Amino acid sequence: MMSDEYYMQQALREAEKAYAEGEVPVGAVVVTGGKIISRGYNQVEKLSDPTAHAEIIALTSAFNFLGAKYLPDASLYVTVEPCLMCAGAIYWSKLSRIVWGADDEKNGHARITGNNWPFHPKATISKGILAAECAALMKDFFRARRG
Amino acid sequence: MMSDEYYMQQALREAEKAYAEGEVPVGAVVVTGGKIISRGYNQVEKLSDPTAHAEIIALTSAFNFLGAKYLPDASLYVTVEPCLMCAGAIYWSKLSRIVWGADDEKNGHARITGNNWPFHPKATISKGILAAECAALMKDFFRARRG
Repeated sequence: MMSDEYYMQQALREAEKAYAEGEVPVGAVVVTGGKIISRGYNQVEKLSDPTAHAEIIALTSAFNFLGAKYLPDASLYVTVEPCLMCAGAIYWSKLSRIVWGADDEKNGHARITGNNWPFHPKATISKGILAAECAALMKDFFRARRG
Repeated sequence: MMSDEYYMQQALREAEKAYAEGEVPVGAVVVTGGKIISRGYNQVEKLSDPTAHAEIIALTSAFNFLGAKYLPDASLYVTVEPCLMCAGAIYWSKLSRIVWGADDEKNGHARITGNNWPFHPKATISKGILAAECAALMKDFFRARRG
C-alpha cells in the first residue's frame, strides 16, 4: 500500500493530460487493495459532454473493470473537490474513501450541500493532499485561458 | 408544442421500459422546440453502473444529437425527482426547465440540497405532473421486489 501522496500524484498525472488537451485540469484514480484499477481525466470538451468529469470517467471504468456496480472497498483520489454531480455519483458507487487535493469554492459540492453529508453514510473523506500542486494546475489553466 | 402531460407521458413510457427490464422504473425525455430529441430510462442493472440513471442517459444522448455540450433551450421531463448526481448533471447541462412527476423523499436531491438551488440560476422547475402515475410505477416495482 502506497501513501496518499503517491496516489494523488497519479491523479495529478491524469490532470496534466487534461491540461495538455485544453480541458479543465482535473484527474482521478480509483484504488482498491493498494492497486490503481482505473484512471480518468476531464474530457468535457473532447466529448462535448459537460458530465464527462474525471471522477465519472474513472468510476465508470472501475465498474467495468470489476464487473460490479458498487465499490465499497475502493478509494477515489481526485485532484479537486468533487462537484455536486460527482458527489452524487460517489454516493451511488458506495465508495468507502474519498480523497481530494484542492478545495473548489465555486464548483465544489460543499457550496450546495453545506452541512449535509452527500456521500455514503460509511464513507470517509480526506482533503488537502498535494493541495498546492492540484490548485496550481487549475490556476495556470485559467490564467492561460484569460490570456 | 404539446402539454407538459404529453411529454411526461412519454417519460412514463421510458419508465415502463425500465420496469419491464427489472430496473427501478424512472424515465426521461429531453425536449427542444417542442420536439423530443432524446429519451432515457434507468439502466443501472443492465450496465452494472449505478450512475446510469434515466436523466444521465437522456442528457448524454441529447449532447450527442445536438453536438453541443449545453442545452439552454431544452427542457428535461423525468418521472421522479432527480437525485443529487442528476441535479448536478442538469446544472452542468444548463437546461432551462426541469419537470418532474413524483417527489422522492429518500433519494431526491432536495434531501441533501435543502434550501440551496442546485440547478442553473436561470433554470425553472415544475413538479407534480402526472405525479400519481409516476409514483404508482415506483410503488408497484418495490412492492413486487419485496415479494
